[in-house]
This record gives sequence, structure tokens and C-alpha cells, in this order.
Amino acid sequence: MTSTWPEMILEPVGTVISELTVPSLTPSHDSLESSISRENIKKEHEKIKKMLSEIHIFESSAARLKGIENFSHILVLYWPHLIAPDKRHLEQVHPMGRKNIEKQGIFATCSPARPNPILVSAVRLIERKGNILKVKGLEAVNDSPVIDIKPYCPSYMVTENLKIPDWMASVIDDSQANI
Amino acid sequence: MTSTWPEMILEPVGTVISELTVPSLTPSHDSLESSISRENIKKEHEKIKKMLSEIHIFESSAARLKGIENFSHILVLYWPHLIAPDKRHLEQVHPMGRKNIEKQGIFATCSPARPNPILVSAVRLIERKGNILKVKGLEAVNDSPVIDIKPYCPSYMVTENLKIPDWMASVIDDSQANI
Repeated sequence: MTSTWPEMILEPVGTVISELTVPSLTPSHDSLESSISRENIKKEHEKIKKMLSEIHIFESSAARLKGIENFSHILVLYWPHLIAPDKRHLEQVHPMGRKNIEKQGIFATCSPARPNPILVSAVRLIERKGNILKVKGLEAVNDSPVIDIKPYCPSYMVTENLKIPDWMASVIDDSQANI
Repeated sequence: MTSTWPEMILEPVGTVISELTVPSLTPSHDSLESSISRENIKKEHEKIKKMLSEIHIFESSAARLKGIENFSHILVLYWPHLIAPDKRHLEQVHPMGRKNIEKQGIFATCSPARPNPILVSAVRLIERKGNILKVKGLEAVNDSPVIDIKPYCPSYMVTENLKIPDWMASVIDDSQANI
């Protein structure tokens, strides 16, 4: 059946302008390494959650933004362009590069090194000026290619009775605790 | 700067097995047409929300699923393969094909006809059996190529004080009201 599928080639529709220049996680030959020490994760996470960045949509797609300003939140799909293509083969990693957490499959983590490295983030849309979207809390590094912008649509996004494993709860606790 | 970006070519990592065979929205030359009459939308929506489908991850990616069974919800990224490639040029459409709603930019809608047609849906993971994920509420049609599986990670997905425009609230009301 695969032969009936179309080719899936993406063209960027815009680019991220951000003060972030280094990905927080980079893959080595068989694992992830965090560029941030564990002590600094909370501080860094807090900084990113408050950080403003811009998404510059190319003129060729500007008409597609009509009405986006009426949403408080949008989904940004982007490509982690600083992750080398040969890192897409990784199968299992220690989440966040933490050796004390058992290795998990890539599909069970938010690792940027994935077979099809498309990252998805729900962020607050602060304002739209023409083809420029100002957003809050986007972790994408500067110059990341933007693949798609979607409204945050509750029908597709909101969950009930969400349950996450202990390892992820611990990672979140670590990054959100006040310091 | 575009020249420094990698090529963005996707390879499917799996496929959807579903009783759905017809997309609920199909693009014509300049708009969207709903395959479901407005009277039947509620019934259809209710059916899909309860419907079980399967995601068959290819053997080559099976090891990447380790640990996914510990999440109650996952994000499924898939390609709407029945939407013809030439429909990716659409810029503005009546949401859900409803002529009484003002045209919106494609980025402000959940239209499957988008420049980079990657659809994202948060669904409940019912069970994992080897490389097969049974999920609830996935609107993907049968044989859709699966691009990525991610855990539903609150840090990237949960919003506060969500605000959506009236047109989307009305579409949601229509599809969720009891009949």
C-alpha cells in the first residue's frame, strides 16, 4: 500500500527569530546530552516560558494568517534544524539525557532526534503584526524552519484524565519547582 | 539563510487502520467541502470520539515505542494522503466548508489542505500490543501514513486561559451538542 502514498516533502513557511541559539538537548551517537546542567534547568525553563520570540511567515504564506489573531494560543510545528540528519536513527534514549532514568523509546519522549523531526508546541500568541507573530514560551532556536501554524483547537488537543509516567512527572517537577 | 536548512523529507513510520475511509473535509479548487451534512455532523463527531482505530508501527521503528504504554494520551502526527497535492496551495477557506462563516486563513483553521499537510491529534492510548497501538478518537482515515508518535507532554501542550473565536466555538457547539 505504501506505493500509493504521496511523497512527503516539506517546504518551510516561515522562520523563528529567537534569542535561543543552542538546542537544550543534542544527540550523541547513542544518547541525548543536555547542554544545561541539572541545577540550571529550572532557571532556563522559567526563562523560556516567559521568553518572547517571533515567527516570520514568508510573504508567500501571509494570506494564510487571516484570523489567527483571534486565538489566544497556536500550535507551532517546526524543524529542529541544528540536529544532524544522521541522528534521526536513534531508537531509545535516557529522557533529557538523564542517565538515572531508564532508556525510553524515542516515540515515548520529546527528543528532537526522531525519524521525522517535527516538533509541536502550543504557545501563547501575543500579537500579530502583518506576517509576524509574536509568541511566548516557544523553545525553538533562532532560524528554525517553521512547517505549520495551527489554531489551538480544543477538539484535537484537550485531554481528560491525563496520566503520565513517573519519570516524566519527575522531569517536569524538576523544571517547574521554584528556586 | 534558507540555504543552510536541511532538506525536509518525511518517511512514514507506520500506518493507520481505521473504519473511516472518506475524509470529512475535501478541498475543491478554492474552498472546502464537507462530506457530511450539517445535520449529521453531531452524530458523526460522536461516533469518531468513541471509535477505536489502530496504528501499526513498522518493525523498523518498533523499538522506538518502548514506554509509550505508560502514557494515557499520545499525539499522533499523520499525513492526509487522500488530499491531492495540488490542494496545498489553498490560502483561505470557509471553516468546515460552511459558507455562512467568513473565510479564514488556512493557518487559522484545522483544514487538512495546508502547505505542509501534517495533522496533529491528541488521542487516548487504549493499549499497546507489540508494534500496534489501539487508540480512541482518531479522525485519520484508513491507510494514512503516520509521521510521528509523541507522548502528550503537558509542558508543550497544556494552555491557560484559552480563548477561541466565536466561529470555532460555534463549530464545536454544533458537533458536541447532544441530539
